[in-house]
Amino acid sequence: MRHGDASVRRPIGVFDSGIGGLTVVSALRSLLPNENINYLGDTARVPYGGKSQPTVERYSLEIAAMLLAENAKTIVVACNTASALALPRLQETLSVPIMGVVFPGAQAAVSATRNGCIGVIGTRATINSGAYERAIRSISTEVRVTSHACPLLVPLIEEGWLNDDITDQMIHHYLDPLLSEGIDTLVLGCTHYPLLRPAFARILGPEISLVDSAQNCASAVRDLLLRENLQTSSNTDGVLEVALTDPPDNFLQVARDALQLDVGEIQLREVAHGTVK
Amino acid sequence: MRHGDASVRRPIGVFDSGIGGLTVVSALRSLLPNENINYLGDTARVPYGGKSQPTVERYSLEIAAMLLAENAKTIVVACNTASALALPRLQETLSVPIMGVVFPGAQAAVSATRNGCIGVIGTRATINSGAYERAIRSISTEVRVTSHACPLLVPLIEEGWLNDDITDQMIHHYLDPLLSEGIDTLVLGCTHYPLLRPAFARILGPEISLVDSAQNCASAVRDLLLRENLQTSSNTDGVLEVALTDPPDNFLQVARDALQLDVGEIQLREVAHGTVK
Repeated sequence: MRHGDASVRRPIGVFDSGIGGLTVVSALRSLLPNENINYLGDTARVPYGGKSQPTVERYSLEIAAMLLAENAKTIVVACNTASALALPRLQETLSVPIMGVVFPGAQAAVSATRNGCIGVIGTRATINSGAYERAIRSISTEVRVTSHACPLLVPLIEEGWLNDDITDQMIHHYLDPLLSEGIDTLVLGCTHYPLLRPAFARILGPEISLVDSAQNCASAVRDLLLRENLQTSSNTDGVLEVALTDPPDNFLQVARDALQLDVGEIQLREVAHGTVK
Repeated sequence: MRHGDASVRRPIGVFDSGIGGLTVVSALRSLLPNENINYLGDTARVPYGGKSQPTVERYSLEIAAMLLAENAKTIVVACNTASALALPRLQETLSVPIMGVVFPGAQAAVSATRNGCIGVIGTRATINSGAYERAIRSISTEVRVTSHACPLLVPLIEEGWLNDDITDQMIHHYLDPLLSEGIDTLVLGCTHYPLLRPAFARILGPEISLVDSAQNCASAVRDLLLRENLQTSSNTDGVLEVALTDPPDNFLQVARDALQLDVGEIQLREVAHGTVK
């Protein structure tokens, strides 16, 4: 399918329940520096991770519709919870290609494991959905998946406690059961978690491969743009526009510092309710 | 003002951003066993504690309007963040008496302190608003108030970690600076915190008075009903109806167990957007 020149500088639309998805933006900026990116974080209703499927579907459709209104050529669901719970609904409803973070992460985990034993961590909603298990099993039936919800890691990261004794203890609390299962690969199934990557690596040691859904999602978006002939032909730097549905709190500074990402001036958007049924 | 017999069994409307406000319901049930109570928790948009004042005002007005549509005779704002940020807006907009948790807590703290040094803990939004400081200073100019935002305590409580080493460490982390200030009274400025009361008491010892906004709010509601002649004349047990804007997760069970509160069958309500401007 050829979308023609009109799409050349149409932005990639990226959304998340909040600011965690900036880890995906950071990866996209490195990989696709000439693409325009419009990021929309639903900070007025953050977090999605403890909410029900119908609510996460409704919120995802509303936020994606706002990005489509900005002429997005593709929608990147930079939120594991929304990817796990709302991707089928988004795909059947929206007219542009959609990329989530779950499938790319599952592919990378299957490639990374040597002993066939993969661990997955995420929000309660992501883990309860079983989306990672399904995605991994659709790629290989020979791996064993053990998953664990870690609801306290997101608030801990948002508080900026990236290097703290309490953080290390909490990681042990959540991960020791997975280590007992013999995993050699751990999927960081929440876009906040890459900010804790140094702590995970320190605690887990070099034997455990860390699969970062942000990096793998960015690669999948690059492949998608090539496949659909939607990549920009421009050689100039792309523009990043970051908008939120509620003014940012403390966490934006944490993310800025950890990702060294220049997000420019943050815009505010009001959620347009009921724009997509 | 006399409201007449029609108001006799009109419910007390109680709302919170989520389920934490059930601590206020528990106190109300003990103090006013014959009153009907309609509780509405905005679990579709929980938490309010990191959101902006305009957003918390809008959410509070929407949720209060839903309780008024159920003929509530008074609205109890069983959420410190909404009380701190939205009470003036609710009071100027709604036609029934409104009771928040901040002023009753401030009164109790001023009564409790012996050395005039009060500590306040709450969400980031509550603490940043300065609402407790203003309320306490409006009662007494002779006390000194030190406050500290504790954003990680709510997710910790919702996770049910009420007795855990990590919880104790986190309490120390947040409270040690207040103890260094010489406080003899601590306001638990979030409706979740009473669930951690045993941990606070153990760590702080008997020298520090704990002011529980749930208990003091319930007493203030009793006084308000008497003053406005809105109390029920019925001698039969009141009915508690609990509704949420999104199906409950793990925390409802934590609250049920800790409060020993029979909440019956949970109803689901969709937020009516824009019902109050």
